[in-house]
Amino acid sequence: MTDEVRVGVIGAGSLGMRHCRTLAQLTPAAHLVAVADVNERAARDAASLSPGAKATSDYRSLLDDPSIQAIVIVTPNDTHARIVAEAAEAKKDIFCEKPLGLELSTVDAALAAVARHGVKLQLGFQRRFDRAYREVQRAIAAGEVGEIELVVGTARDPAPPPASYLERSGSIFADLAIHDFDSVRFLTGLEVDEVFAWGAGALSDGSEEVALDTAVTSLRLENGALATVTSSRRSDYGYDVRVELSGSKGMLALGDARRSPIKSYTGAGVSHDFVGSYWELFEEAYVAELQHFVECVANDEEPQVTGADGRRALEIALAAERSVNEGRSVSLVRDS
Amino acid sequence: MTDEVRVGVIGAGSLGMRHCRTLAQLTPAAHLVAVADVNERAARDAASLSPGAKATSDYRSLLDDPSIQAIVIVTPNDTHARIVAEAAEAKKDIFCEKPLGLELSTVDAALAAVARHGVKLQLGFQRRFDRAYREVQRAIAAGEVGEIELVVGTARDPAPPPASYLERSGSIFADLAIHDFDSVRFLTGLEVDEVFAWGAGALSDGSEEVALDTAVTSLRLENGALATVTSSRRSDYGYDVRVELSGSKGMLALGDARRSPIKSYTGAGVSHDFVGSYWELFEEAYVAELQHFVECVANDEEPQVTGADGRRALEIALAAERSVNEGRSVSLVRDS
Amino acid sequence: MTDEVRVGVIGAGSLGMRHCRTLAQLTPAAHLVAVADVNERAARDAASLSPGAKATSDYRSLLDDPSIQAIVIVTPNDTHARIVAEAAEAKKDIFCEKPLGLELSTVDAALAAVARHGVKLQLGFQRRFDRAYREVQRAIAAGEVGEIELVVGTARDPAPPPASYLERSGSIFADLAIHDFDSVRFLTGLEVDEVFAWGAGALSDGSEEVALDTAVTSLRLENGALATVTSSRRSDYGYDVRVELSGSKGMLALGDARRSPIKSYTGAGVSHDFVGSYWELFEEAYVAELQHFVECVANDEEPQVTGADGRRALEIALAAERSVNEGRSVSLVRDS
Amino acid sequence: MTDEVRVGVIGAGSLGMRHCRTLAQLTPAAHLVAVADVNERAARDAASLSPGAKATSDYRSLLDDPSIQAIVIVTPNDTHARIVAEAAEAKKDIFCEKPLGLELSTVDAALAAVARHGVKLQLGFQRRFDRAYREVQRAIAAGEVGEIELVVGTARDPAPPPASYLERSGSIFADLAIHDFDSVRFLTGLEVDEVFAWGAGALSDGSEEVALDTAVTSLRLENGALATVTSSRRSDYGYDVRVELSGSKGMLALGDARRSPIKSYTGAGVSHDFVGSYWELFEEAYVAELQHFVECVANDEEPQVTGADGRRALEIALAAERSVNEGRSVSLVRDS
Repeated sequence: MTDEVRVGVIGAGSLGMRHCRTLAQLTPAAHLVAVADVNERAARDAASLSPGAKATSDYRSLLDDPSIQAIVIVTPNDTHARIVAEAAEAKKDIFCEKPLGLELSTVDAALAAVARHGVKLQLGFQRRFDRAYREVQRAIAAGEVGEIELVVGTARDPAPPPASYLERSGSIFADLAIHDFDSVRFLTGLEVDEVFAWGAGALSDGSEEVALDTAVTSLRLENGALATVTSSRRSDYGYDVRVELSGSKGMLALGDARRSPIKSYTGAGVSHDFVGSYWELFEEAYVAELQHFVECVANDEEPQVTGADGRRALEIALAAERSVNEGRSVSLVRDS
Repeated sequence: MTDEVRVGVIGAGSLGMRHCRTLAQLTPAAHLVAVADVNERAARDAASLSPGAKATSDYRSLLDDPSIQAIVIVTPNDTHARIVAEAAEAKKDIFCEKPLGLELSTVDAALAAVARHGVKLQLGFQRRFDRAYREVQRAIAAGEVGEIELVVGTARDPAPPPASYLERSGSIFADLAIHDFDSVRFLTGLEVDEVFAWGAGALSDGSEEVALDTAVTSLRLENGALATVTSSRRSDYGYDVRVELSGSKGMLALGDARRSPIKSYTGAGVSHDFVGSYWELFEEAYVAELQHFVECVANDEEPQVTGADGRRALEIALAAERSVNEGRSVSLVRDS
Repeated sequence: MTDEVRVGVIGAGSLGMRHCRTLAQLTPAAHLVAVADVNERAARDAASLSPGAKATSDYRSLLDDPSIQAIVIVTPNDTHARIVAEAAEAKKDIFCEKPLGLELSTVDAALAAVARHGVKLQLGFQRRFDRAYREVQRAIAAGEVGEIELVVGTARDPAPPPASYLERSGSIFADLAIHDFDSVRFLTGLEVDEVFAWGAGALSDGSEEVALDTAVTSLRLENGALATVTSSRRSDYGYDVRVELSGSKGMLALGDARRSPIKSYTGAGVSHDFVGSYWELFEEAYVAELQHFVECVANDEEPQVTGADGRRALEIALAAERSVNEGRSVSLVRDS
Repeated sequence: MTDEVRVGVIGAGSLGMRHCRTLAQLTPAAHLVAVADVNERAARDAASLSPGAKATSDYRSLLDDPSIQAIVIVTPNDTHARIVAEAAEAKKDIFCEKPLGLELSTVDAALAAVARHGVKLQLGFQRRFDRAYREVQRAIAAGEVGEIELVVGTARDPAPPPASYLERSGSIFADLAIHDFDSVRFLTGLEVDEVFAWGAGALSDGSEEVALDTAVTSLRLENGALATVTSSRRSDYGYDVRVELSGSKGMLALGDARRSPIKSYTGAGVSHDFVGSYWELFEEAYVAELQHFVECVANDEEPQVTGADGRRALEIALAAERSVNEGRSVSLVRDS
């Protein structure tokens, strides 16, 4: 065990605040020493969670601070790749929220910087740290459902994010479905070879591409198995994330999560609640991923969710976008 | 295989009508030839289900009819034992709804007549013909949960029967809980040695014994295992019949039955329906028990649910009533 | 109410036998008078279910029999359209198992004959007669989930049919997924405008098109909503048919059907059974659809599932096949 | 907000260790400064969780330490009342694990000392801090199920504790069922007026009273409602704590808790896991109860679970023991 890891957080929005809170809890392994946000008040609120932490509106001051060892990036999606590159240049270890970027060129530049400077990079695919996901991954790797044949993934957010978020988040594929694309890869251990997608703007006027709020994506996996992922920006009943994985020996299903073990029986039938938000469902996983990152930094070990994972998930998302735009399936097979 | 069994039904209330309908369906194995009810219009309605069937307000004319081989008794509870005795005297094979009677003296007289005339007698504990009950009974007999240690039974009727029914039905133990007492015996294969019960009149003014509409009965089984049965005359959400049987190797639970495999997800949570009536839950079992009776009569075989079963369940119910009245537990051990 | 409907059944395989059994139960409304099958022994077995029914290996003798009013077609899929046409020429009312045919040309010829001779034609989409499907259809038509946005359908057969069946059944889309295509239309009340599909031969060597045993089909509905249907010829755990329909006000989910209300709790966890076959899940619906057909014939009314429904479902299935073969989406919009 | 609360823990067994861990997490609101256990090594292990905390085998040194403000008692059940009294004499605020004691005389002496010295006393009924229990309590208090009529409680421990524990823990009623007795009072807001209980020694030779490992307890509540609580020291499938509360408007059911949202579908059926231990089910509640205690001490407020609650639950447990020994029901109505 080494000393505490001094961490700076860039981005103090809703999820940034949560990461700051987690880092405060990880004391003494981690020490949140600075928070940057263009909204300086938000930066101050987040910094107040850790005694002595600085707040700034200029994230570059964190990169310039030699006492900071690791950077957590929770900024708008369209800035991720650039800040990763800058943080790598500044020799910081990096935890970056998904997606790694919104186009392959900037992502590749970021990855090149990471490689050049030998810093660590962990992507924020928090489901990989959820106990149930890990158990399903283990069971599939152990052959408990046999060879994978069919995967059905579902992700529904309770409500669409504000327009200001959507303007910078990339498509529904790069922002929302990317979690499911990564889950398919993580849970099956298989690469995605081909993508077909349709989107719809059921919740909006549908006039612009970015406004897709409903999508269906078909994936063909390297072993020939098929997958379908449905995505929606609205779910009145809660935050609905599920995945079913069928193989030659059976099926594993994950999800349909309840908030409480209460059932109510009335004349209207039997009812129970449903998990309400990504935080409610994945709170432990969000803590575990930062804990893993801090440990990797402290012990000089490679994180489990790499830049390559982040790039691959983005490739699938971009292929889905292209499929929507061109009305055809898009191949991801590298040597073709 | 022999010829058709000519059946007369005594009692054309709600359940009597259903039995008539079932007998009509069992053609050609069974032939419903006559229906008696003090309400002659009800008798006629039921008789109309079977071409050529007679309707009468005098059930004795069925007993006097030599062409009738078997009698199905669906009259008020306080008449069961007497009509069983009369039907036995008339040499009819008998299917009798539960309970076999409301006091042991008349029941014993009825059983003596049945024995004297060598006729068949089957009790209407329809759950014994339910596929799930049979499967649980089989699993327990095969030792799949090990030695039985604890049983929890639940029975809740959607709504209390009318006062006219309650006046003649005996206590909540003899009328409602008797199904659960029989289920404990059937599913575990164990006799009940001791009974303790409390009742409450939650739904009424509670002024009279017959008005008990809620009850908790503790049973001690012959192997030392304990059981508890809760009974209620009201259940806004449907007809709730469940039983959990725990043994040294695990637990089997039966019930929590839904009407349909539909789930509704809304902002109010996730909801599904619940089975609404005894008929909805046990429709197949009600058909199967009459089919079994008809086959036993046709093939001269002993029915699976005997007069002794009917008497034993009544003994438990009467012990529960006595326990309520005397505020102590009541032993059923025969040699004591 | 009119007289009994005299019915002849063509095809006495497994499902044909079941239909014969149902018709025998529908006495006196229906009268099964003849059964034809190229396997005359099978025809005789089926005919024996109805006193006096004839058995033949030549189905044309049923069409030539003026005493027969209605024909039930349960032959191999590749004969449906031709026999429908012949039965129409013979002025018989027709119940035809799905699919209506395997190519549009023969189907259109059959529909023309049906129209020309003014006979009735009901397609065997039995789910439309399932109580739960009807309830979901009603709820959606009543606007209870709002405007439909996303549909996820699942159908998994316990095991692939024998090669002799597959040779004549058409693709997995025309034989299996066609039920789900019809369900999407029935439940949402919306037409399908565009289809994209992928298939895989996970269970076989995959060398021939007919051998597809796994498929994912995306559907775009006329209101812009998206749907995905997954199909598999194998499901170790049972017969898995489910559908989820999401709209602007919530989601309705149908399926995950259990065989019994038993739960087993052991050291290995909690387990329950799963419905095992299409017959187990849809037994009542199969009876109800024939009952509806017989009533329509008797009362000279139009059946609820028409030839147009059969043709439209086939169009979707053929579009899915084309999509697989051509690697692009296929439009079904009529005026394009 | 006041300064940190300096806490000493007496008892460093399994649950004591967990409480120490929680107190360490509650820094800076709480400060674990000393741990006592007759097993000094266990005391040292627990103390090592908090920098600078002392370990001792003599709990009285904690009571004599003026710097310690609050004491957490996690010793064998038969010492609780005595140590509470001593801690009160030493003017410490007290958190005491259930039960408050094993006989009323020592409990009353302890409560008198608490009152005399004006210290706080909170009982370790952690379920009262579980979110689901609180939600059910709120719903019932708000009248959502109407007037309570029937309660069914279940508690099953995965495996019996070691003999050394059983020797000092009191009966199954005082040690295990006491949680359910308290839950009935907490959830319904009703007092228990009468108790009837049976026990069995299904897991042992049953030769001694303390060896009861299975029990059924009937409770009559002050409004006339009935309750039944079943208790077992063995449950192969996990830690099973459930409660159903029925009233005039419906039923609330709490429990049947799963460890993960994973379902496995195989040829053997559908299975899912079950929560495995009290800690797994109530981890958050155990943290919340200590947090509440620390806040009450810091802010000089009365804890929500009082000495009177601890005494009342013990009274019910002792009445159940007496009922078993005397074979009759036991009244708890105070003025009788």
